[in-house]
Amino acid sequence: MIPMSYQAFPVGVIHNTENETRVEIYEPYEAALLGLDGFSHITVLYWFHQNDTPELRSTLRVHPRKNPDNPLTGVFATHSPVRPNLIAMTPCKIIRMDGRSIFIDDIDARNGSPVIDIKPYIPIDKLEAAEIKTPSWVSATRGDNRKDK
Amino acid sequence: MIPMSYQAFPVGVIHNTENETRVEIYEPYEAALLGLDGFSHITVLYWFHQNDTPELRSTLRVHPRKNPDNPLTGVFATHSPVRPNLIAMTPCKIIRMDGRSIFIDDIDARNGSPVIDIKPYIPIDKLEAAEIKTPSWVSATRGDNRKDK
Repeated sequence: MIPMSYQAFPVGVIHNTENETRVEIYEPYEAALLGLDGFSHITVLYWFHQNDTPELRSTLRVHPRKNPDNPLTGVFATHSPVRPNLIAMTPCKIIRMDGRSIFIDDIDARNGSPVIDIKPYIPIDKLEAAEIKTPSWVSATRGDNRKDK
Repeated sequence: MIPMSYQAFPVGVIHNTENETRVEIYEPYEAALLGLDGFSHITVLYWFHQNDTPELRSTLRVHPRKNPDNPLTGVFATHSPVRPNLIAMTPCKIIRMDGRSIFIDDIDARNGSPVIDIKPYIPIDKLEAAEIKTPSWVSATRGDNRKDK
């Protein structure tokens, strides 16, 4: 029988300040980092914890990038930080690792955001740029990935 | 104050049989699909619900792809289906959409897996193949993405 919900526990926290951009993994999960230094990039999954209200979780359509000129769009067709499950997914370059800390290049996350998973970035052959199609509101600001959310 | 856990609700279900490969979004979330047909690819986030036991969630190291020849590796450095939070992340090509159904090319998910989020696939400039580094156990079977889990 499928339960009504699943529980995601914080496994770490994002430090995102003027001085550092770092994922700290909590001590009980340190063993899960073995071998991550063999990768150049990761995908950080975290929770938009400041939006965890029934109202924001029931917002199903938004103007992407909070720009009213962008067409009203379903949240499953955006990376909006309001969505039924508040999962954020951001690819990052690893700058260096130090114990339980992963220093990364950049992440569009609020300081203190709870991390729920780390996955290594593995290129997938079928995702060649030539094959990818996106709507015009995406390409209008391509390259400025910080505006994705 | 940060809660001890976050709740993820199923927003749909994966149908993965001989006859169909389809993500069904549940009716209350249908409005969130508006505009998804402008994309060629999505990332499907689902839950490894059959592994949701304290024992499997506390498994922090595995031999990737269940191959004992691969080095013991932290789960955060793999896409293993056992990990602290049982989130699966798979990029898929959209074949066609029909109402609340997204027909996709292929997904390495068990039939009946609960979907927790859909995100559109947006290429990111910094993730150019030339820059990506992975350990040898990945490249030994590159191209066979089904074995990623």
